[in-house]
Amino acid sequence: MTSSSIPILQLKPRADRRLKKGHLWVYSNEVDTEATPFKTLTPGQQVTVVGDKNKVLGIATLNPQGLICARMVSRQGGVFLDKSLLVHRIKQALGLRERCFDQPYYRLVYGDSDLLPGLVVDRFGDVLVVQIATAGMEAVKDEIILALEQCLRPKGILLRNDHSARSLENLPLEQQIIGDVPEAVALVENGAQFLAPIQTGQKTGWFYDHRPNRELLQRYSKGLRVLDVFSYIGGWGVQAAVAGASEVVCVDASADAMEWVGENACLNGVEDKVQGVQGKALDVLKALIAEGEKFDVVVLDPPAFIKRKKDQKSGESAYYHHNELAMRLLGRDGLLVSASCSMHLGKDTLVDLVRAGGRHLERHVQVLHQGGQGVDHPVHPAIPETDYIKSLFARVYLP
Amino acid sequence: MTSSSIPILQLKPRADRRLKKGHLWVYSNEVDTEATPFKTLTPGQQVTVVGDKNKVLGIATLNPQGLICARMVSRQGGVFLDKSLLVHRIKQALGLRERCFDQPYYRLVYGDSDLLPGLVVDRFGDVLVVQIATAGMEAVKDEIILALEQCLRPKGILLRNDHSARSLENLPLEQQIIGDVPEAVALVENGAQFLAPIQTGQKTGWFYDHRPNRELLQRYSKGLRVLDVFSYIGGWGVQAAVAGASEVVCVDASADAMEWVGENACLNGVEDKVQGVQGKALDVLKALIAEGEKFDVVVLDPPAFIKRKKDQKSGESAYYHHNELAMRLLGRDGLLVSASCSMHLGKDTLVDLVRAGGRHLERHVQVLHQGGQGVDHPVHPAIPETDYIKSLFARVYLP
Repeated sequence: MTSSSIPILQLKPRADRRLKKGHLWVYSNEVDTEATPFKTLTPGQQVTVVGDKNKVLGIATLNPQGLICARMVSRQGGVFLDKSLLVHRIKQALGLRERCFDQPYYRLVYGDSDLLPGLVVDRFGDVLVVQIATAGMEAVKDEIILALEQCLRPKGILLRNDHSARSLENLPLEQQIIGDVPEAVALVENGAQFLAPIQTGQKTGWFYDHRPNRELLQRYSKGLRVLDVFSYIGGWGVQAAVAGASEVVCVDASADAMEWVGENACLNGVEDKVQGVQGKALDVLKALIAEGEKFDVVVLDPPAFIKRKKDQKSGESAYYHHNELAMRLLGRDGLLVSASCSMHLGKDTLVDLVRAGGRHLERHVQVLHQGGQGVDHPVHPAIPETDYIKSLFARVYLP
Repeated sequence: MTSSSIPILQLKPRADRRLKKGHLWVYSNEVDTEATPFKTLTPGQQVTVVGDKNKVLGIATLNPQGLICARMVSRQGGVFLDKSLLVHRIKQALGLRERCFDQPYYRLVYGDSDLLPGLVVDRFGDVLVVQIATAGMEAVKDEIILALEQCLRPKGILLRNDHSARSLENLPLEQQIIGDVPEAVALVENGAQFLAPIQTGQKTGWFYDHRPNRELLQRYSKGLRVLDVFSYIGGWGVQAAVAGASEVVCVDASADAMEWVGENACLNGVEDKVQGVQGKALDVLKALIAEGEKFDVVVLDPPAFIKRKKDQKSGESAYYHHNELAMRLLGRDGLLVSASCSMHLGKDTLVDLVRAGGRHLERHVQVLHQGGQGVDHPVHPAIPETDYIKSLFARVYLP
């Protein structure tokens, strides 16, 4: 590829301002479609992005059908997304993770924040799980595999390209295996061991994003009775047990998840302390309240209740409702760990929902920590969407 | 005191809404001054607060001269701020700290968040440093001393009532010593030892609020060259050295602070690694840049540049300027630790200032952590002013 051989994406006047601030995305209504008849271009194609005064802003991958129609991959006119740039970026990403973690279990590539928009790679030792979300990354899929092999020499790579975000880019939903990929992989997080079902589980099979928040939970678990709602395969609950919780109840709607909770509890020798309850969170919470159960710590880590802006009101209401029920289950001086992975739920809004729940129950609430996502999910300071995890630790007591 | 013997503070219609949300403050323009000629009441006096439909909202301490003219101390009409309530609240506060800390070094009482508006108590083992900021707390000063003695049996109590906030309440600036109070006290934070000059140092002599952020710094210090700007007595820098930094330079304008840095480095046996530079931060930063110095980590923990709303613009500009200079001093793949204790500086604004600095220097910025204040400074979810510490860890590199 050379600079002269690739098309120009001419932006409308002043439409370059977001990019100049460091953002990577171009929206379709920001393109000067007279100068650039970009609807005729191929999805995934690379383009030279040109702003005001004909200034070349860099190279982007294109998807003419997308609301986000282009994503910057470099800030230099001649530097394209190819194997060489992929290797460079993966090494930069690896540099951060190797600085922060002793063991090879982390999100290795976190899309925009690692300047690789549309690409996510989770590392489980010598197995990598890859998610490609854009036509631009899909177009260099072979180069991604080669670059990962060059940088990490993995035994196996699993492409979990079966997530719904791909539909937005008209990409097929599929899984692909390269090399030797088992059904489940081992990982260590905060000293606890897990098996994660990478082929059949949620997302890439494991959620590394809450690692620091689970580390905090461990500090609060010793000798206590812990409820883990939306437990999935036991990330929070099993770690609480490993840290010395006297009893842990994990709740999840999925029977598969419950089996993995049992498996993971056994792996750590805490199977006698961890109990699984399969059922819908709201139903189980209400049943526990009706039975007069009390816990010292309740963890609430639901799936995103606000997936799109239009879900804002109903989603906030769902967060409130779950949190209020969770608070009812707390004993005299309890700890609520309230998490959210909804990018659309503001940090202050989550604090306010927990405040409101406390007032309703006439409890005083002290917010002890407001945690975010782990360091292997760095935030791109120009792209608020990269900052999505919230984890609020709140003491709840009768004043 | 009985309910009938104390005055009523009648609020204007709908002025009770903030209190119903859990907030503790009443502003003077919210009082129905016809029903309550409250300007004639005594500063520090307790009143029964009454809202819409004659509903008793609880008891507050009053300061008729203040913009914030009353602060809630209980939600029950008959429960006054006396030694008994002070003991109850101090025990509740102590319960949290003893749950979280192995050693008796922490902020024991954090004002509004511990439902003791106007009172701050820092604990240094068996010495307590107390700050009283309101006429309401000043009126029960003797009871506070008695309650602290009953709960903690300290060897000495120092009243550091020489801070400017007291002027707003027309309280005198003074220090008072009860029992045995040395010039400096020992404390341990994140495994490092310190001596803090409680009588002559800033605020209470030590800033416990950044404890978790300094713990994080330790994880990033091993083998690295660290610059600690606005070091005060070495809280960040000495901990970096204890965690294995190869070299630490502490910068502060105060000669006294520099002496304590030396003292604290010696205490931990890292005096050969810690160097002090006395001088104004901007001057020293510019001089280091001119000399071509580079650091792996730069910590910036300035005093509040935005003390009042009117300082917003100049303050944000000062934060930007300092951060941009700090980033110039970073090596190839550096870490900026950018802190702020300005309640008026938004979390997102700090992220944006660091983003802008990075763009200006053509560096990519990844925000690794967005830390807040320690658990001994819990946030009251209805009072945003209680949430003031920000600490941003940002990786800065050439993409």
